[in-house]
Amino acid sequence: MKIALAQLNYHVGNFESNTNKIIEGILEAKQKGADLVVFAELCVCGYPARDFLEFNEFISLCDAAAKKIAVECIDIACIIGLPTPNNNPEGKDLNNSAYFIENGEVKAVVNKALLPNYDIFDEYRYFEPSTQFNCIDFKGKRIALTICEDLWNTIENPLYVTRPMDTLIKQNPDVMINIAASPFAYNHDEERIAILSDNARRYNLPLLYVNHIGAQTELIFDGGSLVFDNTGKLADEMPYFTENTAYYTLTDDGGITFEHPTTLMVKRESDIEQIYHGLILGIRDYFYKSGFKQAILGLSGGIDSAVVCALAAEALGAEYVMAVLLPSKFSSDHSLMDAEDLVKNLGCKSETVAIEKITDAFESALHPQFAGLPFNIAEENIQSRSRAVLLMAMCNKFGYILLNTSNKSEAAVGYGTLYGDMCGGISVIGDVFKTQVFQLARYINRDREIIPENTIVKPPSAELRPDQKDTDSLPEYDILDAILVQYIEHRRSSAEIIKQGFADEVVRKVLRLVNLAEHKRYQTPPILRVSPKAFGMGRRMPIVGKYLT
Amino acid sequence: MKIALAQLNYHVGNFESNTNKIIEGILEAKQKGADLVVFAELCVCGYPARDFLEFNEFISLCDAAAKKIAVECIDIACIIGLPTPNNNPEGKDLNNSAYFIENGEVKAVVNKALLPNYDIFDEYRYFEPSTQFNCIDFKGKRIALTICEDLWNTIENPLYVTRPMDTLIKQNPDVMINIAASPFAYNHDEERIAILSDNARRYNLPLLYVNHIGAQTELIFDGGSLVFDNTGKLADEMPYFTENTAYYTLTDDGGITFEHPTTLMVKRESDIEQIYHGLILGIRDYFYKSGFKQAILGLSGGIDSAVVCALAAEALGAEYVMAVLLPSKFSSDHSLMDAEDLVKNLGCKSETVAIEKITDAFESALHPQFAGLPFNIAEENIQSRSRAVLLMAMCNKFGYILLNTSNKSEAAVGYGTLYGDMCGGISVIGDVFKTQVFQLARYINRDREIIPENTIVKPPSAELRPDQKDTDSLPEYDILDAILVQYIEHRRSSAEIIKQGFADEVVRKVLRLVNLAEHKRYQTPPILRVSPKAFGMGRRMPIVGKYLT
Repeated sequence: MKIALAQLNYHVGNFESNTNKIIEGILEAKQKGADLVVFAELCVCGYPARDFLEFNEFISLCDAAAKKIAVECIDIACIIGLPTPNNNPEGKDLNNSAYFIENGEVKAVVNKALLPNYDIFDEYRYFEPSTQFNCIDFKGKRIALTICEDLWNTIENPLYVTRPMDTLIKQNPDVMINIAASPFAYNHDEERIAILSDNARRYNLPLLYVNHIGAQTELIFDGGSLVFDNTGKLADEMPYFTENTAYYTLTDDGGITFEHPTTLMVKRESDIEQIYHGLILGIRDYFYKSGFKQAILGLSGGIDSAVVCALAAEALGAEYVMAVLLPSKFSSDHSLMDAEDLVKNLGCKSETVAIEKITDAFESALHPQFAGLPFNIAEENIQSRSRAVLLMAMCNKFGYILLNTSNKSEAAVGYGTLYGDMCGGISVIGDVFKTQVFQLARYINRDREIIPENTIVKPPSAELRPDQKDTDSLPEYDILDAILVQYIEHRRSSAEIIKQGFADEVVRKVLRLVNLAEHKRYQTPPILRVSPKAFGMGRRMPIVGKYLT
Repeated sequence: MKIALAQLNYHVGNFESNTNKIIEGILEAKQKGADLVVFAELCVCGYPARDFLEFNEFISLCDAAAKKIAVECIDIACIIGLPTPNNNPEGKDLNNSAYFIENGEVKAVVNKALLPNYDIFDEYRYFEPSTQFNCIDFKGKRIALTICEDLWNTIENPLYVTRPMDTLIKQNPDVMINIAASPFAYNHDEERIAILSDNARRYNLPLLYVNHIGAQTELIFDGGSLVFDNTGKLADEMPYFTENTAYYTLTDDGGITFEHPTTLMVKRESDIEQIYHGLILGIRDYFYKSGFKQAILGLSGGIDSAVVCALAAEALGAEYVMAVLLPSKFSSDHSLMDAEDLVKNLGCKSETVAIEKITDAFESALHPQFAGLPFNIAEENIQSRSRAVLLMAMCNKFGYILLNTSNKSEAAVGYGTLYGDMCGGISVIGDVFKTQVFQLARYINRDREIIPENTIVKPPSAELRPDQKDTDSLPEYDILDAILVQYIEHRRSSAEIIKQGFADEVVRKVLRLVNLAEHKRYQTPPILRVSPKAFGMGRRMPIVGKYLT
């Protein structure tokens, strides 16, 4: 049996585009002689559709799309994913379903049993877990079809009390197929391979796995669909961050053959390479799927805005990126020069708008209230907010989307100005720690100097008062980031982190800053997610909670 | 048996305060001769603790607090709620538990079975549902103890496939006790009474129900703890929006007696009265629980900021409210006069800061870019954003928290400026439709004119260009709000709403505006929730999704 795996870029709620892609995939697979073509989880509506799923009309649109797809599915079978009404009046109103379609008809329906409801996942908000498991017979092969998380309960300390494959294996299937929507994080590809390999070995079956690629607001799907033989050996691995369809033949002894040159990775990409490719896809899909082409950002001469500018130029084309230099009286000469060098190196558009007269106007207007009080964070923030007003005015006038340039380290400790540098339509590096931003800069410069060397080597500064440095308020970034990884990604307590050798006082200060900044992070743009624990929908903290504050 | 119900105001993560309140409650109940005192669901850590629950240290702090409470629980029993580790390695790591404590020891543990995971609820993110149900014997009575949602599955189209009481009733209990964390919405009190009454009648048992009061960021808990006899008759109802402890005696025939004058409501409060009391509590707890005293807001002379100012003055004291008048060249004389009248009527503090020189400075700075282009939304938004910069500067200088004054109608259709009038620490009326804002104004003026009559009767305007009116861009508010209720609260499709008699074109325009404004709402402050469907954590929409746009 010849099976096509279609790893495609869908768009949440865009039924026309998704349906067309799926139908094209069916027609192409048929033309290439496939018996079956497999699409990803919830491909019909896109993932995550979130509360769109609470609208009956939205569910009807999914049904209508499935009917349109079924009509095209003649002389080939396909597997698609979509939400369907739960026929049982008890329980949630929907199932997360896979349709097995053959000869224009839905021949079998499989519902997902293990519903991820952690980090960025909310599936039990919408779906009833399945408790019935049946294999599908097709052309002399018996297929154990499952949906994403259904295979993820083989780990230690599992999140669920059941394993669908434990039931399905009793029906003697010949092959496992798993359709997924598994978002990117820099460490997730290896975890995915390990868990799926374990399933193939455990059940002694070949396994074909299809993932999404493409970004849906903050969530990036990296593709990397996988094929294992029945010993758990990885037979093939589809490319990451790009659409792809590939064809595999099941042999009778549980093996997998294919004719294309394998794209199995010889050497895995580094975290930074993966993050780079993820962010490029994230920016591109954010703009194209929302119907925008042009980005704007404030370019300070510092490393964060430089990296974002370079990423945006790569994602959108330099001619669609407007970099605005917004010097104040505290901006250093080297900052302006570094920013100008970057613009030249990238070939993007740029403007310069000095903010001094604006901040003077604010300070004059507030003179009756502020007279006699020392310059402090109020005046610092006026500078940052004035820049945001200018950038947003250009967005409103010319149709740009503002790119936010905050990094994860400063977002963590609240080292940023709400309604100032924390503005933007999308945060590009809000899930990238400062130490990783430096690595990204080096990676961007791998072939030639794009980001000026001086931008990389000079000590980071917000330049909101004379001779300010980040280290005036914060620990050195290598220490800060190491503590943040422990606290945010591993959820360690201060006692545990101190035991790892960090200074007591520093750890307590950092954790306190993180928790005090929840109110700021609540109002920031969506953040492209590249780590296993990003700020935003994956980390939900009380604002007025009293813990470590 | 004499049972005390303690309806208290907890604070998420504030173990010291919560533990002290619980211990005081135990000592007071003991002194008054109670056999048992019942506290609310998850009272030890506060509700919702959200991702604090993912920290082992946080769970240890809950355990430590429970031990401290148990020590005080001598010659009286108590029921407290807290998260506890799940002893089974399979499934989620925690249970949502109730401890029955007697003589310093945990005598029984009950775990919640039905885990709400819709709207603002995320309980399956953290907790494993219980599948074992046992009554608790105490002083000759058998108690069926359940936790909140465990009794909410008696409705048509239930969300869950089981009912814990169907198992517990077989053990012949004498009384049901339910501990809850049931947040306020203007229609929720009657729903609660109906469902609990149905349980008492269905199982032929008296029922005692204890709720939280107090606000945790956006979620307001209204109290209104309830007592039913075994016929389902409401025997007593605790006051709303205030702490209270009351004592009830179980009679042998399934009745309930008590000595205090009943607080059972003779006439239920109107939606607007409830919303008023809810918002006062919401503002007060937001400030006090985050350690702030002073609010600031921009006062335009319009009805939204007038209502917020009056609510803040009532919640915090007029002397802790700073109203700032921020006129532009488009502000009308009557707006300034109306704002000044309100300040006088309330006795709050005020300042006036004109913004014209600031907006001139922005427009001059942008002249090279904007020259020759017509005045449009860019210049309108500069005004709104300049006001936000001024208000935030005063926050930074003097320690105010900025109150957001956007209403639900404009938040819905995106009729507001991101980083302008959409700023603030907390949104006071972001869950109150414009038509309800008018009703709130009338209610605030019930005894004397606080909000100037002219503010209530004049046509709403943002005053960002000459002679602007809201109805230039939007339908009349009575029509707009009626459509929004159908779309947002009832999740109706455009076809269904049009069928109700609204004009096709208007409905499509409104729904489109709502969906296009997701990116704005994503970055707005937390909104005090007073309706069954508020923007924020209870409504989770894709931003780059394509549905109705």
